[in-house]
Amino acid sequence: MAGDDGGRRIDVRAGAGDYPVLIQRGLLERVPELIERYAPAARYAVIADSRVAPLYAAPLVEACSASGLEVELFVFPEGERNKTRKQWSILTDALLSSGFGRDTTVVAVGGGVTGDLAGFVAATFLRGVPVVQVPTSLVAMIDASVGGKTGVDVRAGKNLVGAFHPPRAVLADPETAATLDREERAQGLAEALKHGAVLDADYFHALTAAAAALLDGEPQAVLDAVARSVALKADVVSKDEQEAGLREILNFGHTYGHALEAAAGFAVGHGTAVARGMILEARLGERLGITRAGTTEELEEGLRRFGLGAFEGGGLPAEKVLGFLGADKKVRGGRARFVLLRRLGEVHADGGWSHVVPLDAVRDVFTQSRSAAEGI
Amino acid sequence: MAGDDGGRRIDVRAGAGDYPVLIQRGLLERVPELIERYAPAARYAVIADSRVAPLYAAPLVEACSASGLEVELFVFPEGERNKTRKQWSILTDALLSSGFGRDTTVVAVGGGVTGDLAGFVAATFLRGVPVVQVPTSLVAMIDASVGGKTGVDVRAGKNLVGAFHPPRAVLADPETAATLDREERAQGLAEALKHGAVLDADYFHALTAAAAALLDGEPQAVLDAVARSVALKADVVSKDEQEAGLREILNFGHTYGHALEAAAGFAVGHGTAVARGMILEARLGERLGITRAGTTEELEEGLRRFGLGAFEGGGLPAEKVLGFLGADKKVRGGRARFVLLRRLGEVHADGGWSHVVPLDAVRDVFTQSRSAAEGI
Repeated sequence: MAGDDGGRRIDVRAGAGDYPVLIQRGLLERVPELIERYAPAARYAVIADSRVAPLYAAPLVEACSASGLEVELFVFPEGERNKTRKQWSILTDALLSSGFGRDTTVVAVGGGVTGDLAGFVAATFLRGVPVVQVPTSLVAMIDASVGGKTGVDVRAGKNLVGAFHPPRAVLADPETAATLDREERAQGLAEALKHGAVLDADYFHALTAAAAALLDGEPQAVLDAVARSVALKADVVSKDEQEAGLREILNFGHTYGHALEAAAGFAVGHGTAVARGMILEARLGERLGITRAGTTEELEEGLRRFGLGAFEGGGLPAEKVLGFLGADKKVRGGRARFVLLRRLGEVHADGGWSHVVPLDAVRDVFTQSRSAAEGI
Repeated sequence: MAGDDGGRRIDVRAGAGDYPVLIQRGLLERVPELIERYAPAARYAVIADSRVAPLYAAPLVEACSASGLEVELFVFPEGERNKTRKQWSILTDALLSSGFGRDTTVVAVGGGVTGDLAGFVAATFLRGVPVVQVPTSLVAMIDASVGGKTGVDVRAGKNLVGAFHPPRAVLADPETAATLDREERAQGLAEALKHGAVLDADYFHALTAAAAALLDGEPQAVLDAVARSVALKADVVSKDEQEAGLREILNFGHTYGHALEAAAGFAVGHGTAVARGMILEARLGERLGITRAGTTEELEEGLRRFGLGAFEGGGLPAEKVLGFLGADKKVRGGRARFVLLRRLGEVHADGGWSHVVPLDAVRDVFTQSRSAAEGI
C-alpha cells in the first residue's frame, strides 16, 4: 500500500488495537486476502443491504469462497429506516441459526447504514467479534467507517443505541463511488466539507475547487478526498476514541442536523441535513459573537457548489425540529450542545469542544433562517 | 474499607480502567455516597426487577434523592425469561423518554439477571454510559457482578447477545442474602463451588464445611465466601478480560449446564444446571483419562451438602439437550468445547483452557449418567 500504485494507508489508534484504513483503486478484488490477513477467522459473515448485495457483496462472497474461505452472505433491506434494533435482531439470529460461533469475522459491505448496523451486530454477537469495514458509499469511506462507532436508530433519535467497536481494518475502493448517483455523492461529500470546516480551511477550498470531478465520481479525485478526510478524522479519533473530548468537533452541523433528520422521519439525506446544520450552527456562532462574521456565507458558498445547504426543512413544524434537539445524544443535563466555529477550519475550544447555548438563540436562528429563505 | 470494620476491597483490572469490588455488611446504606464517588453523573438511572424494586431499589432511590442526587427508578418484570432484547429495548426507551443523556450512570440493583440486563442497557445507551453493580443475590455477589460481562438471552441460547462493559464499582452487601430463600442461596453457592473446583480445592472444602451457615445466609459466612470467590475471579478476569484464554476456566460446568438450561426453557435454576454440568464434565474428564479418578465423586459429595448436583434433566429429551451443545457460545468451528479438571482445584491446561471432545463421549456421559440415576 505504498504510494507507488496510488494507494494510501492511514493508521488509526484505538484502545482495542490500531487498525489500518487502506484506500486504493481496485482494492475490492483484494478483500478476500485482506480480511484473512487482518481478521483471520474460521468463518466470515458478509453483511450487506439489498442494493449493495448483488453489486458488491455477492461477487465478494464468491471470490472469498474461491479463495477457500468459509463465508456466508446476510442481506437486510436497504435504507436508514432499517437501521433498527429489529434488523439487528434478525441479522444476529440469522448468524446464530447458521451456526456462527466466536471464531467469526463480520465483513460489512456497503454504506454508512450497513457499517453501523453490521458493526453493532459484530459488537454484540457473543459479546463481540471482529468486524472489517468495506465502505462502498462516499459517506462511509469519508466518515462512517473510521472511528469505531456502531449503532442503530430508535424512535427518540438517530444512533441512540450502539457501541464503540473499532474495525480490524477499513478497506475502501474509490471505484465503488462510480455506482452511486450524483446526489448520493453529494451526500457523502457533506462530511468531507465538514472535516474541512472544522479542521482545515485549505481542504475545504480544495474540495470546492474539485466539486465537478467529485460529483462525477472521478476515482482519483475521490481517492484524494477520502484519503485527506480519513487522515483528518483518524487524527481526531486516535486522540479521543470514545468521544470524551476532541472528537466532539466532528459533531459540527450535527446538532441541528440530527434534529432536522428526526423531525423529517429520516426522509431527508444525512448530508443534506448536516449541510443545513453547519450553516445554522455557523450562523448561531456568528450571532453569539464567537464565529467570525462572514463565515456562514463562506461555508454556504462552498456547500452550494455541491447542491448542499439549501434545505430549509420547509415543511417541518419548527416546534418538532426544536423538540428533537432535546433528545440528541449531545444533550447533557437536558440542554443541547453545539460545536461552534471560530472561523472556517477552526473550532471555538474555550471551555470545551461543545457549548450550551441560550435556547432563544437556538430557536431564533432556526426560525429566522427559514423565514429568510422563504422570503417572508 | 480496611479490614477493621470487616469490610473487604478487591480491585479488578480492566482495559477501560480498574474498578473496586467493595464487600461489607450494611454497605447498601452507603450506596448514594459511593456511586457519586465512583461514577459521578448528572443523573442516575436505578434499574431493578419487580421483586427487588420494593425491597432495595426504591429505598435506595429515596436515599439518593435525600442526598441531593438526581435519580429515577426503572423496573422490569423479574425472572430470567425477561432477560431479553425486548426488555432491554423497553428500558432503553424509558431512559430516553425521561431525557437521560450521556451524563448518566446506570445503577443495577439486583441479581444476575438485573446485572446482565441493566449492564447491557448501560453498554449500549448512547454507545455506552457507566454502570455500578449493586448485587443483592448470592450468585450476583459471588460471580455475575464481577468481570464486565453483560447481555441478554435469545432463542438460540443464553447470553448470546451482549457486550463486555466493566462496572465502575461493585457494591456488595452480604446482608441482602438474608432476604433470599435457602434454594436461592444454594443456586448462588454453586458458582462459589465452581471457583473452588477449578482454582482452589481448599476453598471448595471450606465451603462444604460451612454449608449450613451459608445456606442459612449467615452474613459473616456469606461475606467470607463472597470475598474469597471475588478474589479468585478477579485474579482470572484481570489476566484475561475478554475471555481470550484463561477466563475460559470459569466456564467449567457451563457447557453441559447451558445446554440443560436451554433445553429446559430456562425453567431450571442456573446453579442447579451448572452443578449438574460440573459433575458431567468431571465424569467426561475421567472417561477421557484426563481427570483423576474419584474427582467426580469428591465433587458430587460436596455439591450434595448444598442440595445440588442431583438434577438429571430427567424429563428432557437427550437429543434436545445435546442439540443445544451446538449453539453454545463456547463452540468453535461447530464443536462444543469443555473445560476439564486435572483434579479438584486444578484444570487441565494442555493445549488450551478448553477442549474439543469426541462427540460420542459427550453423548455417552450424558445418557449414561441419566440412566444410572434413573436406575435403568
